[in-house]
Amino acid sequence: MAKAAKKKTGKKSTKKSPAKRARITREPAQNAFYAQSGGVTAVINASASGLIETARKHKKKIANVYAGRNGIIGALTEDLIDTNKESAATIRALRHTPSGAFGSCRFKLKSLVDNRREYERLIEVFKAHNIGYFFYNGGGDSADTCLKVSQLSETMGYPIKAIHVPKTVDNDLPITDNCPGFGSVAKYVAISTQEASFDVASMCKTSTKVFIVEVMGRHAGWIAAAGGLASTRDNPIPIIILFPEVEFDQAKFLGRVKEMVKKHGYCTVVVSEGVHWSDGRFLADTGLKDAFGHAQLGGAATVIAGLVQGELGLKNHWAVADYLQRAARHIASKTDVDMAYAMGKAAVQFAIKGHNSVMPTIKRLSNKPFKWKTGMAALDKVANVEKMMPTNFISKDGYGITHACKNYLEPLIKGEDYPPYKDGMPKYVRIKGVAVKKKLKNKFEL
Amino acid sequence: MAKAAKKKTGKKSTKKSPAKRARITREPAQNAFYAQSGGVTAVINASASGLIETARKHKKKIANVYAGRNGIIGALTEDLIDTNKESAATIRALRHTPSGAFGSCRFKLKSLVDNRREYERLIEVFKAHNIGYFFYNGGGDSADTCLKVSQLSETMGYPIKAIHVPKTVDNDLPITDNCPGFGSVAKYVAISTQEASFDVASMCKTSTKVFIVEVMGRHAGWIAAAGGLASTRDNPIPIIILFPEVEFDQAKFLGRVKEMVKKHGYCTVVVSEGVHWSDGRFLADTGLKDAFGHAQLGGAATVIAGLVQGELGLKNHWAVADYLQRAARHIASKTDVDMAYAMGKAAVQFAIKGHNSVMPTIKRLSNKPFKWKTGMAALDKVANVEKMMPTNFISKDGYGITHACKNYLEPLIKGEDYPPYKDGMPKYVRIKGVAVKKKLKNKFEL
Repeated sequence: MAKAAKKKTGKKSTKKSPAKRARITREPAQNAFYAQSGGVTAVINASASGLIETARKHKKKIANVYAGRNGIIGALTEDLIDTNKESAATIRALRHTPSGAFGSCRFKLKSLVDNRREYERLIEVFKAHNIGYFFYNGGGDSADTCLKVSQLSETMGYPIKAIHVPKTVDNDLPITDNCPGFGSVAKYVAISTQEASFDVASMCKTSTKVFIVEVMGRHAGWIAAAGGLASTRDNPIPIIILFPEVEFDQAKFLGRVKEMVKKHGYCTVVVSEGVHWSDGRFLADTGLKDAFGHAQLGGAATVIAGLVQGELGLKNHWAVADYLQRAARHIASKTDVDMAYAMGKAAVQFAIKGHNSVMPTIKRLSNKPFKWKTGMAALDKVANVEKMMPTNFISKDGYGITHACKNYLEPLIKGEDYPPYKDGMPKYVRIKGVAVKKKLKNKFEL
Repeated sequence: MAKAAKKKTGKKSTKKSPAKRARITREPAQNAFYAQSGGVTAVINASASGLIETARKHKKKIANVYAGRNGIIGALTEDLIDTNKESAATIRALRHTPSGAFGSCRFKLKSLVDNRREYERLIEVFKAHNIGYFFYNGGGDSADTCLKVSQLSETMGYPIKAIHVPKTVDNDLPITDNCPGFGSVAKYVAISTQEASFDVASMCKTSTKVFIVEVMGRHAGWIAAAGGLASTRDNPIPIIILFPEVEFDQAKFLGRVKEMVKKHGYCTVVVSEGVHWSDGRFLADTGLKDAFGHAQLGGAATVIAGLVQGELGLKNHWAVADYLQRAARHIASKTDVDMAYAMGKAAVQFAIKGHNSVMPTIKRLSNKPFKWKTGMAALDKVANVEKMMPTNFISKDGYGITHACKNYLEPLIKGEDYPPYKDGMPKYVRIKGVAVKKKLKNKFEL
């Protein structure tokens, strides 16, 4: 931007007078608010990096980026982090650091009718800190919050440009080809499933015959589907995927396990945490209590393990990846990191062009070679819409993925983007997190 | 070796007559048997790679390397894999491929008195295939088997050179500084614990306060200790480690969790699968049965999760790494890979020098900079000796690791050794596994 401004003023002078600068930028710069929302991912900080680095190139439009400490809660409590206090090196390092560096939260703004108080408080804080841009980095619920904020000028007379930056391992946002965060989980699940399957294959003659790994995705089987990528042409693996989209049929499942173990000597089961019985109960809800009367917190994996052992008498092992999968920045997908960064960058570009109530999206142009570009979606088309797996992505027997699914998934796990290391550990960064001085006297109770 | 032989014959002729060659090598070449044993690791194939590549350079001593299909079972059933049929590229690729490429097994030879039949069969197969070298790649139990085989010339009059190649994620072999396989698990556990802790730290304001990860190590806490590496000077993390060496004290543990969450907002618990109550029962043994009467297969992590939720009311998440940790070649430690390869190489070098009943070891020379060299241990000093964690490696409160432990562990996770990738997935290799033609008519029942 500095360069572009220079060109416009000609090459005679490299320094511009304050008066000239004012004429060029016209509108006075405002500040931006950025917040991370919902479950964090391996690459949400890459979006933050793209957003802040881009904003820093447009100081005439965006004077400062203030980040909400712990998401939108930071806005409500006037707990803002001054990102200017973070060095260029730190902002660059966010690109390779997992988790939400500024703190995230699970907090959904209610509707204007139900809780006008929260919106009035937001405006109070925004006014106090001259916030003209609102960037919200999250999934479905967050898109809804962002939409409501984008309507503040209409509903409450406060002009603001609100842009939603897509992020969710669940991959369930509509319009965009995929959601940053998902590709890296998919890569982790595919590789981990392949590695553990190699392990089991080499031991199955005298030891474990069935390996079970539980992955995230309570409502949609996108992550479980990624387990299907573990089986490649060079390394075929007998895999059974249990999707939340498919009712669990115990007899059919056990029959399939038996058949696969007979044929291949072993098999691997990738089970979504959202797998449920025909009556809708999750497999993970066993209703058992331990000796102290505490609910026995098992996962779907333990139930599957119990069935395989109890009904088939087959030795098995099970793993539950839980947060390891969404935090695994060490094996993030380069495609995913690039996309996450691009979404943050595009959000700023959209905002300074005057857009409001939109979300940058990923548009897939071709599979082979994989090409994509940044698109734009209206936020009212995104909020409260959940993208489920297309039915033609699940194989007819309900236990595998189709070629269409493989073609969709494969580009998203492409490329490696290793963080730098020091003494064997990744050099993940932590922000200083210096607070912007509060300007309001009244406190806000959440 | 070929070079060395050339030097001895002078530089006059680069081609040697068969007669000359015979005079130089003197003893006729014999074949070698190689087998993988016990639980596989991310780097046991690196040992196989080092062993086979080195043997191929010494054809005058070791004509062929035959690998047991599924470990020692392959020897008993005369199911030998001809490694000559594997290309140089495949043998090289074993260095970056996890699992046991030739198949491993859990099968311990009984004593000569208890089962003379097995030893007679081994000799029968060895004679039929002109086996003069026996390489056994495994942990404690395997060292014992290897020792018995090394004594065949004394006990049964069959001359053989038996070398044990150390491997075990449990890190419990004596004399050697560490065991190939352990360093990579340690790196995986340290990084995964750090990544998940970053995740929890960024969400703890409104979500999960305690993250629990269960790791391997039923008898010794080496792997659990590696969780302590997640907390570094740059990235301190509140971690509680539950070692199998320390009796589980529920009240004290819950007090510590409460204290850490109060102070830091969250904490991470690394729990060994071998953690037990004061009466010796494993935490994982809940004694619960599901609705079908199957034993409820929970892990230690689920019990800890139940306590944290039930007694403290703290939201928590838990993961069980299981095979993922020992198969995670994608994040193997370079130090570990180098050591694993070196052990395979040294085994051949020891054998062709005429050693019997020994194991190559890792000798640590210095910590900073980390230096090590290959040593040699007598097998009767290795077999049936379990190396436990030194008591000064566990902090006084029983929940952490000491500086001495950090100094020991840190060099073992140093360096990354990424496998090559294709389309987002590691290019792990599978062997062709062509069987050596059987020479015996009788079959052996296991």
